Amino acid sequence: MRYAGLRLSPGGAGSAKSEGRLTAVYRIRCDAASIAARAEALAVEQSVEMPVAAIDDCFVLDDIVGQVAAISQIDDDLFEVRIALAAATTGDEAGQLLNMLFGNSSLQDDITLHDVDLPESMIAAFGGPRGGLAGLRQRVGAIGRALTCSALKPQGLRPEALADLAGRLARGGIDFIKDDHGIANQHYSPFAARVPAVAAAIAVANAATGGRTRYLPSVSGTLDDLRAQVAIARASGVDGLLVAPMIVGLPAFQALSRENPDMALMAHPAMGGAARIAPPLLLGKLFRLFGADAVVFPNYGGRFGYAPATCRAIATNARAAWSGTAPSVPVPAGGMTIERVPEMLDFYGSDVMLLIGGSLLAAREKLTDETAAFAALVRQHSFR
Amino acid sequence: MRYAGLRLSPGGAGSAKSEGRLTAVYRIRCDAASIAARAEALAVEQSVEMPVAAIDDCFVLDDIVGQVAAISQIDDDLFEVRIALAAATTGDEAGQLLNMLFGNSSLQDDITLHDVDLPESMIAAFGGPRGGLAGLRQRVGAIGRALTCSALKPQGLRPEALADLAGRLARGGIDFIKDDHGIANQHYSPFAARVPAVAAAIAVANAATGGRTRYLPSVSGTLDDLRAQVAIARASGVDGLLVAPMIVGLPAFQALSRENPDMALMAHPAMGGAARIAPPLLLGKLFRLFGADAVVFPNYGGRFGYAPATCRAIATNARAAWSGTAPSVPVPAGGMTIERVPEMLDFYGSDVMLLIGGSLLAAREKLTDETAAFAALVRQHSFR
Repeated sequence: MRYAGLRLSPGGAGSAKSEGRLTAVYRIRCDAASIAARAEALAVEQSVEMPVAAIDDCFVLDDIVGQVAAISQIDDDLFEVRIALAAATTGDEAGQLLNMLFGNSSLQDDITLHDVDLPESMIAAFGGPRGGLAGLRQRVGAIGRALTCSALKPQGLRPEALADLAGRLARGGIDFIKDDHGIANQHYSPFAARVPAVAAAIAVANAATGGRTRYLPSVSGTLDDLRAQVAIARASGVDGLLVAPMIVGLPAFQALSRENPDMALMAHPAMGGAARIAPPLLLGKLFRLFGADAVVFPNYGGRFGYAPATCRAIATNARAAWSGTAPSVPVPAGGMTIERVPEMLDFYGSDVMLLIGGSLLAAREKLTDETAAFAALVRQHSFR
Repeated sequence: MRYAGLRLSPGGAGSAKSEGRLTAVYRIRCDAASIAARAEALAVEQSVEMPVAAIDDCFVLDDIVGQVAAISQIDDDLFEVRIALAAATTGDEAGQLLNMLFGNSSLQDDITLHDVDLPESMIAAFGGPRGGLAGLRQRVGAIGRALTCSALKPQGLRPEALADLAGRLARGGIDFIKDDHGIANQHYSPFAARVPAVAAAIAVANAATGGRTRYLPSVSGTLDDLRAQVAIARASGVDGLLVAPMIVGLPAFQALSRENPDMALMAHPAMGGAARIAPPLLLGKLFRLFGADAVVFPNYGGRFGYAPATCRAIATNARAAWSGTAPSVPVPAGGMTIERVPEMLDFYGSDVMLLIGGSLLAAREKLTDETAAFAALVRQHSFR
């Protein structure tokens, strides 16, 4: 590393630790006669992006140009292509990893990014969740059962109204209360007023019930904003956050995780527009890689069109053994109701967090009772 | 604004200036019998995200809940739906604006975000390009003709090799030289070594030829990284940058523009995965709104499948009069060649920057001559 003395920042690309190649797995819709050429073009597009014949640098030709590792046919006009890309091109930086995986090819609408295999050195460099499933269980003292979560809504409510809702959810014995992902730092409920108020209401409820409900406020904006918000959250005794990685940007999400190893990060899928990147990859694997302790995703049979197999694959990627990284907690959500709790627990098992938002809030004056019923159903479920 | 004293940062959401409603325009694929209900559900999804019947706060009901403004039929099973969303929910923050426009609905694969109409107060709050077309023309002294641009590639080359290429392109009289968007801060060509070397090579060439070639280095990483890179670029006499807003994240892009009004920002479409957000909106309108002085996009007839009409719409959105914001420069690219220069100039007119990368570099030892031919072709073109 000739220029090691010129590194911009510790942990930045200048100190990259990854070696070897990662494998990006794409699916390309085209005819059989074209697939070999399409695969070669994709390997070039996602690496040097210029005619290989015009390159004479041996390092670039040997170590940087993408290589087609495999092509297999999935269907009549659908192929899976595995491309080996140099790990060094990513600098172990989240934004640049996605740039290498799907930067230009995201603009080609017959290509989807399906999966990725990363070298151990890169997984170690990113590090994955700092606490993950175990950290979230420990916070609320929940062993051998699923976790529960609800959401503060609607955006537009003043801090005192949100705090009132939070207190009532906490009295019902919910494990986690997250902000709706639409709650940011709006003038009618600024972060600096809202978060202390909600945290205090939850603390009062916990003191009254002996409960351990935790608050996950939504953080947003630039890295400066995120840091200011984390400081306010810490001062309010908060030890977890909700964040939408595709909204704040992957580099900021990675920095948030790296700077706050003691904060549980719940990742929200907003702007995850999963049509072109397979949801099990983006939500289950990449968000986990970059540090998500829990991952919210649309459950099957709710307001979003995800199939059960997609949801199972997201949960599998979030929890599976993966080079020593902590498992993330899958959080199926999106129009869930208490009636579906037993079915969802049977489907996902106990290493899950069930998130019911609007349908609890619809109970209005019976919010605490309804929350208690939800918590009891989860506690009492027996896994077959 | 009760909590004005608690603002997190000047220019942050706490000081939002926007009022009234913005209109998000979606296209939904569904049958005629379902569209009214789908539109109502979308208005709720993108605002309060809970049953409206469970809301009793008048401010939320009147000022925050999304409203279906219009539904029109485009095709048998395709409808355009206009939803009025409260401007105050965005806090004039780029990430939160996209969250409100397409956060959850990006996960519903029969919905695309087609366009947006913003209130004047919001356009003024974001501000658009700081210099735009006029600023880029002024930098290189180009009046009444199209601008020219090429790219430093391939990634993997050492700083001295990239600097050598840059010097040869500059001697050919190109207006702008941008880094390939894959060039970040990798250990084999770190920003702090690469940018001064390239800038120096261009300065030497300019001194020899009397030319005014400008360099647009690629910046990436977190806001901390971006700031460190901008400082290095400034110290090297650089007054423009290449940045991929969807890679660094929209909040960081907005901050970059706000903090560096004297830097020309060329936006790269990487990860713009345009299948679900209409490219004329994302690349032409939103990138401009957040401060892009120039916008790179895939030209028709190149390596990407954009239609001429899409390209024309991107260029129109980038340049059209828009509440007093400076026009951005459209930069069609992606497999362009010198042979296509006259056709492209006839298509786009003179308010354009033509970007030819790999096909110039393929000239190898004749790089400077080929660049000079490109520059001459653009200078001599007569617009009909």
